[in-house]
Amino acid sequence: MKISYFVILIVTTIITTLTIFQLPVRPRSPKKKPMVRLARLIIDSMQLESYKSFLKEEIESSLRLEPGVQSLYAVTEKNNPTHITILEIYADTAAYQLHIQTPHFLKYKTGTKEMVKSLELVETVPLIPEMQLKHE
Amino acid sequence: MKISYFVILIVTTIITTLTIFQLPVRPRSPKKKPMVRLARLIIDSMQLESYKSFLKEEIESSLRLEPGVQSLYAVTEKNNPTHITILEIYADTAAYQLHIQTPHFLKYKTGTKEMVKSLELVETVPLIPEMQLKHE
Repeated sequence: MKISYFVILIVTTIITTLTIFQLPVRPRSPKKKPMVRLARLIIDSMQLESYKSFLKEEIESSLRLEPGVQSLYAVTEKNNPTHITILEIYADTAAYQLHIQTPHFLKYKTGTKEMVKSLELVETVPLIPEMQLKHE
Repeated sequence: MKISYFVILIVTTIITTLTIFQLPVRPRSPKKKPMVRLARLIIDSMQLESYKSFLKEEIESSLRLEPGVQSLYAVTEKNNPTHITILEIYADTAAYQLHIQTPHFLKYKTGTKEMVKSLELVETVPLIPEMQLKHE
């Protein structure tokens, strides 16, 4: 009987301690803050096809090889085909920092240096942050 | 023996005919052409929060209820919070036509009429058309 009371006391103490100090019984998954950006580019019209093939290869490699690259969706404007917008979603800024050191990104960056007439990088806040895009 | 030869002749004739005229043995799935657009909006700063809640509701309803709405991804610019860009992907133009007749779209459209200072709809061509975005 004495032992039973002792066990109850110990268990109660542990539960109380965990509750008060909110000790993680299960490790919480760290909440990553996605980095969402719009890249707006204007490309030299004489080199547009070459630029697009560089970009296509870079996007396909990034999505295949980098779990932290959640989305790279590029469009050209119908009325201004040299105007390109890319919606870029990275798991967090660390994933982005890794991305810009990859061989496929560096190949794209150096290969297209003379093709890009203008590059605007617009930092954004997603309207629905919990929404994730997955490529198929 | 005679019948066997006859059967072989018939089968060969059918296969040859199908090959030459490329008759669909199995019906081909019709290839839909996605409609991809960028909407660029500037919102009245005094009504920004109200506008965002209208848009959030509209996007969530569209993705839940309309299989033809493949993506609606909205961002606000960090340096210009009243500047909003939405990447819109519909399965095809028919899906878009259905979308703009839905009650949730009409509620958004009429509810935000006085909040939108500028709306630019930019028709685009995706760089990688076979790439699909799925929300999670």
